[in-house]
Amino acid sequence: MSRSPSRRGRRPAGEDTRGAIIAAARESFADKGYDATSMRGVARAAAVDARLVHHYFESKAQLFTATMAVPADPEAVLREVLAGPRDRIGEGLARAFFGLWDAPDRTPVLVSLIGAALTTEHAARMLREFLISEVFGRVIDTVSAQGDDPPHGRDLRAGIAAGQMVGVAILRYAVRHPPVVAATPDEIVAWVGPTLQRYLVDG
Amino acid sequence: MSRSPSRRGRRPAGEDTRGAIIAAARESFADKGYDATSMRGVARAAAVDARLVHHYFESKAQLFTATMAVPADPEAVLREVLAGPRDRIGEGLARAFFGLWDAPDRTPVLVSLIGAALTTEHAARMLREFLISEVFGRVIDTVSAQGDDPPHGRDLRAGIAAGQMVGVAILRYAVRHPPVVAATPDEIVAWVGPTLQRYLVDG
Repeated sequence: MSRSPSRRGRRPAGEDTRGAIIAAARESFADKGYDATSMRGVARAAAVDARLVHHYFESKAQLFTATMAVPADPEAVLREVLAGPRDRIGEGLARAFFGLWDAPDRTPVLVSLIGAALTTEHAARMLREFLISEVFGRVIDTVSAQGDDPPHGRDLRAGIAAGQMVGVAILRYAVRHPPVVAATPDEIVAWVGPTLQRYLVDG
Repeated sequence: MSRSPSRRGRRPAGEDTRGAIIAAARESFADKGYDATSMRGVARAAAVDARLVHHYFESKAQLFTATMAVPADPEAVLREVLAGPRDRIGEGLARAFFGLWDAPDRTPVLVSLIGAALTTEHAARMLREFLISEVFGRVIDTVSAQGDDPPHGRDLRAGIAAGQMVGVAILRYAVRHPPVVAATPDEIVAWVGPTLQRYLVDG
């Protein structure tokens, strides 16, 4: 339990610290998985005080979400897709996902999340809350707020859309089914984009 | 390592034995997962000689596949779907899957397979070989043998179709996203059926 803060200097608070915490957390989630990663361990790896980690992130789940974030603001990515042509929202979403997931530093974190979601209720809830509600649910809400019929079975549609993306992610990054690994993002988007379009937009 | 064959009588060889082995294997895969299940342990649980297990099943993978089989002949189920109206093949497939997976004795085995596929190459290969090649690949081959254009990216299409089904299975049986759990098979099939139809049949 003894730490050796003298070995590496503590970083001052600020944006740099937040980035260092996220980088350490990303490495820990990828190496050890979700359950075995602790806020304290991340603080140690980032050479910051544990209280600083709690200052930036309320919970391990929130810290995890931060490690998965696109380099840009994920809200901005979503807004951009939603601002594009209505008949290409599914395609735009699918493209954004592979742009995020194909990044070599994020793939192991994604695989770790999916594995954890199968075995721990905490990680499962995170997947439900983040991917399904924050991303797909919001797409449906935004699209229907633009003057459409109220969506039928919004949460079911969001869930099945998430199922398609999670399943393809498993085959591309975890099970590594060769044809799905070898495909370019464009080739996968050509199949999956219209599927998301039907689930989320056309209904 | 000592066994007590006297505690329960050994069963004679025959169909009943094969069924007893499958039942014991199903329980073991569900309780312990794929890796921790051994042919020897299954033999012990079924109260049969280990050589008999090897007589019926060449490998643990083959034994596993047998535990997942529909009560009827899976080939027959597939033949029936393929013999139906061409524009409802996707729907028929999706319906067959939920008929299989919703059975309470099979759900935990399915969840265990998916979990194992994320972490062990053996289980991953099993998923690829069985679900993708034997089921979805065969659908594409059969449909295209009926006089269609040769399929483009057959293995990619089969993989993405498998991704949709694996992903929905995760949300319904493992992550247990409430709207996907609460939906009837018909409601899910209404969304997923046309997706499989496009991936596998319409291309």
